[in-house]
Amino acid sequence: MTIELPSQMHWSRWGDPEKSHPVSETMRGLIEAFLGPLEERPAVALAEVRLPEVGLTEDLLAALRGLVGDEHVHTNDEWRVARTRGKSTPDLLKIRSGDASDAPDAVVRPLDHGEVAAVVSWCVDNEVALVPFGGGTSVVGGLAARRDGYAGVIALDLRRLTRLLAVDPVSGTATLEAGLLGPEAEALLAQHGLTIGHFPQSFRYASIGGFAATRSSGQSSAGYGRFDSLVMALKVATPLGDLVLGSSPANAAGPDLRELVMGSEGAFGVITEVTLKVRPVPEVKVYEGWRFDSFAAGADAMRRLAQGRVMPTVLRLSDEAETSVNLARPDAVGSESAGGCLMITGYEGTPDQVSRARAASTELLTEVGGTSLGEDTGQAWAEGRYDGPYLRDALLDVGVLVETFETVTFWSNLANLYESVKAAIEQDLTSQGTPPLVLCHISHVYETGASLYFTVAAKELPDGLAQWLPAKAAASDAMIAAGASITHHHAVGQDHKPWLASEIGPVGVEMLRAVKERIDPRGVLNPGILIP
Amino acid sequence: MTIELPSQMHWSRWGDPEKSHPVSETMRGLIEAFLGPLEERPAVALAEVRLPEVGLTEDLLAALRGLVGDEHVHTNDEWRVARTRGKSTPDLLKIRSGDASDAPDAVVRPLDHGEVAAVVSWCVDNEVALVPFGGGTSVVGGLAARRDGYAGVIALDLRRLTRLLAVDPVSGTATLEAGLLGPEAEALLAQHGLTIGHFPQSFRYASIGGFAATRSSGQSSAGYGRFDSLVMALKVATPLGDLVLGSSPANAAGPDLRELVMGSEGAFGVITEVTLKVRPVPEVKVYEGWRFDSFAAGADAMRRLAQGRVMPTVLRLSDEAETSVNLARPDAVGSESAGGCLMITGYEGTPDQVSRARAASTELLTEVGGTSLGEDTGQAWAEGRYDGPYLRDALLDVGVLVETFETVTFWSNLANLYESVKAAIEQDLTSQGTPPLVLCHISHVYETGASLYFTVAAKELPDGLAQWLPAKAAASDAMIAAGASITHHHAVGQDHKPWLASEIGPVGVEMLRAVKERIDPRGVLNPGILIP
Repeated sequence: MTIELPSQMHWSRWGDPEKSHPVSETMRGLIEAFLGPLEERPAVALAEVRLPEVGLTEDLLAALRGLVGDEHVHTNDEWRVARTRGKSTPDLLKIRSGDASDAPDAVVRPLDHGEVAAVVSWCVDNEVALVPFGGGTSVVGGLAARRDGYAGVIALDLRRLTRLLAVDPVSGTATLEAGLLGPEAEALLAQHGLTIGHFPQSFRYASIGGFAATRSSGQSSAGYGRFDSLVMALKVATPLGDLVLGSSPANAAGPDLRELVMGSEGAFGVITEVTLKVRPVPEVKVYEGWRFDSFAAGADAMRRLAQGRVMPTVLRLSDEAETSVNLARPDAVGSESAGGCLMITGYEGTPDQVSRARAASTELLTEVGGTSLGEDTGQAWAEGRYDGPYLRDALLDVGVLVETFETVTFWSNLANLYESVKAAIEQDLTSQGTPPLVLCHISHVYETGASLYFTVAAKELPDGLAQWLPAKAAASDAMIAAGASITHHHAVGQDHKPWLASEIGPVGVEMLRAVKERIDPRGVLNPGILIP
Repeated sequence: MTIELPSQMHWSRWGDPEKSHPVSETMRGLIEAFLGPLEERPAVALAEVRLPEVGLTEDLLAALRGLVGDEHVHTNDEWRVARTRGKSTPDLLKIRSGDASDAPDAVVRPLDHGEVAAVVSWCVDNEVALVPFGGGTSVVGGLAARRDGYAGVIALDLRRLTRLLAVDPVSGTATLEAGLLGPEAEALLAQHGLTIGHFPQSFRYASIGGFAATRSSGQSSAGYGRFDSLVMALKVATPLGDLVLGSSPANAAGPDLRELVMGSEGAFGVITEVTLKVRPVPEVKVYEGWRFDSFAAGADAMRRLAQGRVMPTVLRLSDEAETSVNLARPDAVGSESAGGCLMITGYEGTPDQVSRARAASTELLTEVGGTSLGEDTGQAWAEGRYDGPYLRDALLDVGVLVETFETVTFWSNLANLYESVKAAIEQDLTSQGTPPLVLCHISHVYETGASLYFTVAAKELPDGLAQWLPAKAAASDAMIAAGASITHHHAVGQDHKPWLASEIGPVGVEMLRAVKERIDPRGVLNPGILIP
């Protein structure tokens, strides 16, 4: 079968350059009305990117070639630049300015678990730092390893691990190799009539291993569940040997070590195989827009759905600001909105499942003051659901600093969290002379709480990175002060590490350190990531 | 309000002696027809129980009294015997024979988290082993700590930590102290119209902290979820200080450390407070019996329910043998059964929720060959649901060795697991000259798999313990050989420790050891439990 996707994103932009478009004149006008006159800030050309000399000796490179084959060790600039960091706005700002100082010395592409395990062992023996690299979509600095004290750094590119290893239609599980990107995995499973149902915004470019390593959560999580809730078994190559977990859906055989591997971002080992809960490909998919008078009213409706045993497959709610700029519809950002707050609901399954869930949801949403905006609004969201990051690139091109971040808390704390994070980021950027546009939506809903996903846009100052970092810190401080989590579905990386320590406390930090030091005493696995 | 329960079980039997009845003549006849003539094997009297001298010095005891108050440190025989081990059949065999060699030197009863933390620190400083003791219902040897090399052993009795600390009706959460027994917690929450919905067979005597520490799962887990899935936040007293986890329902802030505390059985710290997902007290509870022609047909029906987004609140299925002796109805064991395999379904919620779920289940169960046996059968199960352990005591009194154990796997492996565990235990006990009766039911159902709960009865040999241990080992070996878990909801303790190492492998074991050694370097927390 044909997978119609590039296996690697553009080095300085999101996704497929073909899908990239400059901001329209209309949008530019709207933004300028808010932020003032814009000016072009193009990225440097690839030839101008500065990256360090390859630090690995020829002997070490030869040894690596021996492990994975000559043609699977790359040291040229294009390969190295394309495996430099992830796709956060700070990552983009750095690479757009020509800074590839975090480039790996080599890109190493093993074939399977055995080759991954061999490379891990070799890195331990040779004190070479190893960064597991799947789709390269990290937005938390998860791919920029510490370099000091190592003989070099390799990007362990997992994109050759692309097999569907097993399907168990009776249990409803499938075992996939870690390097499969979202669409590849879905295409392989579709041949068996199955789906994972994991569709985060990064879906087209992120990998199965990365979803597990970062505790990703998709836009259909209300129906299919977070990625970590889908993981039944894991195979991990560690410096101590293979770790194979997952005897059963759930058990009482001590702590659930799967939950220690998930979210570990390569710090404890390289996830090579993942067994997932899979479901039948839905026969019907229906998406619908709803209007609520206020963010509070819409949030309350979501809570009632989640607590009332009535859950759509997709459930999202934009605040007034996000609704007013139509951000939920990348095809129509800036066009007129219905006012109030836009909710997107989606139903997937058999015709019977869809009609039951939709009837129950419709009854409840109507009862609490919602007005249906019809399926067109829902369909437009569904069609543009993966396109947000392209808009960010286009805005960066005209000097608009755009970034997203997210958090999660319990329902009773949600309004407080929303207000305090919004105030913190507005205050910081305003104090820098760049008052921002702050948009927010509820992206994932649970019985006991929900996540908030913020989008911030401000005029970029000459040093955009120096402008953004304190603003991000102010937002992060506000999350921790509110008792919320530093991240709902983006992981920790380098960027959230200082706040992780506050969230889990000193004893929690010692638990992570203890595991790290025992499993990876030489500290070669993604050094500097995750562990405070 | 009045809690009509003793706070502590009988020292050598389950639960309340008032509820204990000898086996009826009818039942005795039936059992003798199968196992041959029985003879009385009464437990020794309390006065005959042999327990070690109190090993803690007067100075150490005085220091403990200083921490929790004079009246909350007990060293008399009755207190010590009642905190000796748990309630597995091996535990009962030992205590019935007068062996209380595992008795703690003292029973220490702190008031709250602060006092627990003080006792934990004191134990570290004085190298005194500490066994957290909630309801004392462990059936895996979780309460018999290693004694060698310590200045003594205390049972840290948590039964004074019985407050409902917070209720958040908006989020649907409640924070409870760890020492509350199931009925006490439910009674406190009922005043707010809320329920946990966690009803394991040990419900009347087991504690909130114990449920979390052992990853308990209740008989209504199909509807309410396993206990670990209900835990939103935890407070733990550790030798390194307090560990407070749970910023949110779910997040991506690294590994989920709650999942490392749950199942840790006191080895990493003492759980003192637990924040749980709670639901409205159901307005309606309906239980129903169903008949399937075979265990395989019933299991397939359960799988279809679980995978079809239609789940009753209670879902259980007895195999042919268990159905034939009516074990699902302790009031009617031995009376005539409907033949085939008995399934119990239960629906709890609002009238609307119950009627929707019941209609969908009934449609599916009928479609796949089930026949309703009506509500009387379901109600009889519900009324006797906590009484199984009393029958075990009565059978032990007449020389019938009875024990239960359980396991879990994925659906496609369930028949294999069932056959191989059953064969293993039958073969072992038959080879000892005591062919057993082996009964089984599916006790908990997931989308991707299910648990098997076995009950075994055999004529007790003169040394019942020596008879049972190899049989249990054979069953455990069979679970691991089948790729299943050593336990679905009873935890590891001492009894499952050798097999845990096989289940999680050497790297998994090192993860647990690393955390244990970092958090509890002196090894005072429940020594010998869990960690291979």
